[in-house]
Amino acid sequence: MQSLPLLSHYLQQAQAKLPAAIWHYLQADAGDGHQLHANALAWQAQKLMPRPLQQLHNASTACEMFGERWAHPILLAPVAYQKLFHDDGEIGTAVACNAQQGQMMVSSLASQTIEHIIQQAQQPLWFQLYWQGDRARTLPLLEKALASGASAIVFTVDAPVKQSLMDLPEGVSAVNLAQALAPLPIAPGQSTVFDGWMSQAPTWEDVHWLRQQVTVPLLLKGLMHVDDAKRAVDAGCEGIVVSNHGGRVLDNTPTVTAVLPQIVTAVGGQCKILVDSGIRSGQDAFKALAMGADAVCIGRPYIWGLATEGAMGVAKVIRWMRDELEMTMALTGASSLQDIRQLALYQS
Amino acid sequence: MQSLPLLSHYLQQAQAKLPAAIWHYLQADAGDGHQLHANALAWQAQKLMPRPLQQLHNASTACEMFGERWAHPILLAPVAYQKLFHDDGEIGTAVACNAQQGQMMVSSLASQTIEHIIQQAQQPLWFQLYWQGDRARTLPLLEKALASGASAIVFTVDAPVKQSLMDLPEGVSAVNLAQALAPLPIAPGQSTVFDGWMSQAPTWEDVHWLRQQVTVPLLLKGLMHVDDAKRAVDAGCEGIVVSNHGGRVLDNTPTVTAVLPQIVTAVGGQCKILVDSGIRSGQDAFKALAMGADAVCIGRPYIWGLATEGAMGVAKVIRWMRDELEMTMALTGASSLQDIRQLALYQS
Amino acid sequence: MQSLPLLSHYLQQAQAKLPAAIWHYLQADAGDGHQLHANALAWQAQKLMPRPLQQLHNASTACEMFGERWAHPILLAPVAYQKLFHDDGEIGTAVACNAQQGQMMVSSLASQTIEHIIQQAQQPLWFQLYWQGDRARTLPLLEKALASGASAIVFTVDAPVKQSLMDLPEGVSAVNLAQALAPLPIAPGQSTVFDGWMSQAPTWEDVHWLRQQVTVPLLLKGLMHVDDAKRAVDAGCEGIVVSNHGGRVLDNTPTVTAVLPQIVTAVGGQCKILVDSGIRSGQDAFKALAMGADAVCIGRPYIWGLATEGAMGVAKVIRWMRDELEMTMALTGASSLQDIRQLALYQS
Amino acid sequence: MQSLPLLSHYLQQAQAKLPAAIWHYLQADAGDGHQLHANALAWQAQKLMPRPLQQLHNASTACEMFGERWAHPILLAPVAYQKLFHDDGEIGTAVACNAQQGQMMVSSLASQTIEHIIQQAQQPLWFQLYWQGDRARTLPLLEKALASGASAIVFTVDAPVKQSLMDLPEGVSAVNLAQALAPLPIAPGQSTVFDGWMSQAPTWEDVHWLRQQVTVPLLLKGLMHVDDAKRAVDAGCEGIVVSNHGGRVLDNTPTVTAVLPQIVTAVGGQCKILVDSGIRSGQDAFKALAMGADAVCIGRPYIWGLATEGAMGVAKVIRWMRDELEMTMALTGASSLQDIRQLALYQS
Ligand SMILES: Cc1cc2nc3c(=O)[nH]c(=O)nc-3n(C[C@H](O)[C@H](O)[C@H](O)COP(=O)(O)O)c2cc1C
Ligand SMILES: Cc1cc2nc3c(=O)[nH]c(=O)nc-3n(C[C@H](O)[C@H](O)[C@H](O)COP(=O)(O)O)c2cc1C
Ligand SMILES: Cc1cc2nc3c(=O)[nH]c(=O)nc-3n(C[C@H](O)[C@H](O)[C@H](O)COP(=O)(O)O)c2cc1C
Ligand SMILES: Cc1cc2nc3c(=O)[nH]c(=O)nc-3n(C[C@H](O)[C@H](O)[C@H](O)COP(=O)(O)O)c2cc1C
Repeated sequence: MQSLPLLSHYLQQAQAKLPAAIWHYLQADAGDGHQLHANALAWQAQKLMPRPLQQLHNASTACEMFGERWAHPILLAPVAYQKLFHDDGEIGTAVACNAQQGQMMVSSLASQTIEHIIQQAQQPLWFQLYWQGDRARTLPLLEKALASGASAIVFTVDAPVKQSLMDLPEGVSAVNLAQALAPLPIAPGQSTVFDGWMSQAPTWEDVHWLRQQVTVPLLLKGLMHVDDAKRAVDAGCEGIVVSNHGGRVLDNTPTVTAVLPQIVTAVGGQCKILVDSGIRSGQDAFKALAMGADAVCIGRPYIWGLATEGAMGVAKVIRWMRDELEMTMALTGASSLQDIRQLALYQS
Repeated sequence: MQSLPLLSHYLQQAQAKLPAAIWHYLQADAGDGHQLHANALAWQAQKLMPRPLQQLHNASTACEMFGERWAHPILLAPVAYQKLFHDDGEIGTAVACNAQQGQMMVSSLASQTIEHIIQQAQQPLWFQLYWQGDRARTLPLLEKALASGASAIVFTVDAPVKQSLMDLPEGVSAVNLAQALAPLPIAPGQSTVFDGWMSQAPTWEDVHWLRQQVTVPLLLKGLMHVDDAKRAVDAGCEGIVVSNHGGRVLDNTPTVTAVLPQIVTAVGGQCKILVDSGIRSGQDAFKALAMGADAVCIGRPYIWGLATEGAMGVAKVIRWMRDELEMTMALTGASSLQDIRQLALYQS
Repeated sequence: MQSLPLLSHYLQQAQAKLPAAIWHYLQADAGDGHQLHANALAWQAQKLMPRPLQQLHNASTACEMFGERWAHPILLAPVAYQKLFHDDGEIGTAVACNAQQGQMMVSSLASQTIEHIIQQAQQPLWFQLYWQGDRARTLPLLEKALASGASAIVFTVDAPVKQSLMDLPEGVSAVNLAQALAPLPIAPGQSTVFDGWMSQAPTWEDVHWLRQQVTVPLLLKGLMHVDDAKRAVDAGCEGIVVSNHGGRVLDNTPTVTAVLPQIVTAVGGQCKILVDSGIRSGQDAFKALAMGADAVCIGRPYIWGLATEGAMGVAKVIRWMRDELEMTMALTGASSLQDIRQLALYQS
Repeated sequence: MQSLPLLSHYLQQAQAKLPAAIWHYLQADAGDGHQLHANALAWQAQKLMPRPLQQLHNASTACEMFGERWAHPILLAPVAYQKLFHDDGEIGTAVACNAQQGQMMVSSLASQTIEHIIQQAQQPLWFQLYWQGDRARTLPLLEKALASGASAIVFTVDAPVKQSLMDLPEGVSAVNLAQALAPLPIAPGQSTVFDGWMSQAPTWEDVHWLRQQVTVPLLLKGLMHVDDAKRAVDAGCEGIVVSNHGGRVLDNTPTVTAVLPQIVTAVGGQCKILVDSGIRSGQDAFKALAMGADAVCIGRPYIWGLATEGAMGVAKVIRWMRDELEMTMALTGASSLQDIRQLALYQS
């Protein structure tokens, strides 16, 4: 299986095309880039065992979650301000996602309205929720998403301290928010981090409150600790996204590969387990599924496609990853996602 | 023992001489080159323990398999379309192989006729069989090989999904095939991988069928899992080639060094165990034998010799590897392949 | 948490601004730079586990030691001859330290008088003591420091063999010493190391003597072995600085991360445990505290700030490390240093 | 302890000064240089634990072997054809060795006569013996060495297959040999390695014979396996040199650090254990002694000194390594070689 150079092609094109500040914003991690690298490397380091001579002609990557049927388990992770990368913006991503019979998560910081995005997608989409400082300000955003037809809410909990963002160019903003979130004004001797930001951050209490408000499946995004995964289940969440936010929030965390097995053992079957951070190929997706994930999300890779060719680029990235997933199944003798899950990865 | 720079010399010459597309085809692995590197590194990483002061003047690398007697256990792995690399093509390889008193496997995708190659070799050769989509189309190819005097059939099972190959230049084609294999036409919504390719791939049932047709020793090439090795023995195969296809089929597999010991324990003595993928010196060959292999195959290295000096280059590569194997035996106190097998490799 | 490039900025500025010999003196380690690198890498290699959704708005980095109250646990390690790096010298450092409500250790080899430094700091400071060859010559230095208002004595014991130092430029010298220490004259056949230097080095006997002389808390700096830590406690020391002297004394020692856990287990609670060597961020500080340290010291990093912007640069380095420590606490759910100590670092 | 750049200085000078072919011959290992690197790295990787505050002013590196008293345990390993590197040749080395109160091993392939070398050294030296194809041709060489006053015989057993050496320039040859050793002429079908070289290689039988002929202490050089060390003791040898010949004979062997502990356990106390291969500093020497060696030998490093400054360069290399050994003892609290041996190296 000779790796098509599609993704590295898009990566190079995106880097060439985007202004440096935007490229930097896209690729940045919380440190010097080492976590970004570690995330991808950790998937690569897992070994696959070839199992030839299996009967596979009825094989398929089809799957189902919360009553939705998808052609494959490769979701698009929420990425803010997509008009930064291409005029098509979130709508381009949504159209591609529909064409490839998958699902995406629309960011709270989308640069187009959630109503418009879902309408153009011609299918219900998932909405990613950021806490808006308190319950009163969070509720309207949630209600807007639900009213627009969001079929699941993904509550991202791992990024409470917002760093000074790049300056957004003219015409790009978080159009779904009533107002941008800023740190609280602090008194002398107080801490910007603790008093300015953290007093606006959500807590487990807020998760319980949110569970009451959300009428569709609720997922928590950004969990890495097995106890937090259990707590999400106890709070009535239908799913979690095991993620270190692509390395963008805290430097030198474990990789998802390191924590996933324990989380699968603890809450597998009780809620859906999605993963992201560093997935770069259909083989990586295969490995995540073999380790017990129910689906995978990609972040930066589809943005490289969006930046290069708009909606078409996103569609090709999804298709390429699905093809690679199929080839990996063919070569390892797995004819369904269920089969993959029963294959143990090779341990040296 | 100062390593003669012969092989790196040939590698450099071949790269300089071959058109870029052909060089790329030769060296390619399934990913970004990392498996190719990992394969070679894994052999290198094994340590050898010097054992001076042994009596060695009757020592020899001579060996025997399926009634054939060879001067050394270094076989030439099947490599397709050898006229791509030198006008001598497969015939050059065959002549060199005979001059060095060894054995080679002629590929199903040879660019010269199997009759002609065997005739010029002046010795029976082994034939590597690729499945031709179904039994009816496979049988004529097999029969042609047997009729031409193939003394063993090596059935390669690890490469069922053919990737878009480089465009073959004028005058180079798979002359032994009735027609090139292509994916089945697929209906909309069907998968190229599963419905196009895999419905033409062989299964264990086909191995059983093949065993009936093959009147000479039958080997399966491309097994990595111990259960598949056992199944090969159960199916009546006389040998296996433990191989990850030089890293060309699936990226991020284990190396052969990682799986060989378990396979030797399971089926050693019940069938012949050959290995390839990443062997680059007589020391690597020594290590494979010490780990329990009965013989080793080389792929790319002899092609570097072929590309540089035709038949003469192939002969020199074989000779150099044999000399290095002898020197390694001399320095470790092994006077026969049997002795090597009884030397445990040094474990740190 | 996107890492502010402040520290690498200062590092680059300092390198650009300082004469090569001074830069080399600052960055040097005992070997070829590998220990310097290993020290920093060892902190980085520790992994942090994100724990979102904790209640943190009363959180704080405040702490207390020997009755002193600090806003944060980031101390400035003793660094000699600070006028080499900026005209502000030790006074600049002291002023910045006070502005950031922390503590520093003034070197025996300070280039400004200890009286003057403490006076400008407007707070008591700690004094780092080097042995002056014998008790008679050491006592006056100690008494001068105590008389100037030193609130703790840090006795550095890991650097008994002074190497030929760079030539100090005009106007920079160890103004607090009666005379510079030189090796004893040796007879032919004697050893410069053993007879010249080591006969002037302090021993555990001298530590006991010193304990009698010191009326404020006494710390030993430069211990790495758990038995030496215990012996320090037995000798009545109130604290130790676990340190390999930033790699400047002996090459290829363990890193502090490797020895700290055992030392914490042995003497934690019986004396204060400070650490230095390779700490380069608030995250590193967090990790040291999580491993059981009571406070951390930084050496080269604040000198990069001093060299670039004098007192202001030192203040900004301290502030940046404290901010990073706060963010790390926010993202890991720790609301006090006590909390950090109860968080086990992630073990893969 | 700031590492004096003396050795890297000499390395650079030697490389600049020597003709490329000679430099290549000096630095070569059996493969692509990786063993040379691995040897040095393995010593470096051992960690030293600082132990300050010890009483050390009577400390010393003095030692004794076979009745000889040396100022330090750093011996010069046998290196062939030293006139290749400097006109002073072996005599330069011998003079330096005497000035530094140490010991050297004169190679069988010395480019000056053993009589002359020992005479200029003004002290008995050790003689390194290469087997001369059979007993009859070996005896005269041995007798010549003993007659010249060799105080020990070091029989090198790990290099039986001589590789085609560089062409020796005019005026440089193995003046102590009756005739150069060449492979036996072989019949067609015979092997150069086994029939040409190995039938002239020594065996354990020859060691027993040699033991009868040698009236001074006999050491075997080039043992790596614990069983061979035991066999040397059983054969009545007074010492062994654990060595992989600086990586020059067989590629990818274990490093000496890997095999030394087991050998020390097995034969320590029953014979003297010397080591070489990759020792590049007084710290490396310290580590070897801490692991149980009785003395260490250096090869290439003193040749760098010889090439740069003749006898003076060799003397400085020895002195520098001894100084570094003393400093390492000072910083780890060891006052004698005996003390070092009782210090366990730090294990992480
Ligand atoms: C430019 C960019 C913007 C992002 N914006 C959001 C966001 O608004 N909400 C969110 O939950 N995650 C956001 N993420 C994180 C992604 O959802 C996802 O967790 C991460 O990108 C996965 O790692 P990968 O990029 O290595 O695939 C963003 C990531 C990137 C690269
Ligand atoms: C250019 C090329 C063509 C190959 N063609 C075939 C083939 O036709 N049939 C087959 O079974 N293996 C084929 N192989 C795989 C080799 O038989 C062998 O498994 C592999 O090259 C061994 O690894 P090495 O190249 O690292 O020695 C090919 C390999 C190369 C490099
Ligand atoms: C230029 C320089 C001078 C130093 N001078 C002293 C000193 O006078 N006394 C002392 O105890 N330590 C001294 N140290 C060691 C530091 O106190 C501290 O242990 C070390 O710098 C910590 O490592 P770091 O630089 O990696 O943070 C010095 C370090 C440097 C870099
Ligand atoms: C140029 C050169 C020539 C050598 N010649 C001999 C020799 O004649 N006899 C011998 O026993 N070892 C010989 N050796 C090996 C050394 O004695 C020693 O084992 C080796 O150099 C130690 O490794 P080092 O160079 O890393 O210190 C030679 C080594 C070199 C580098």
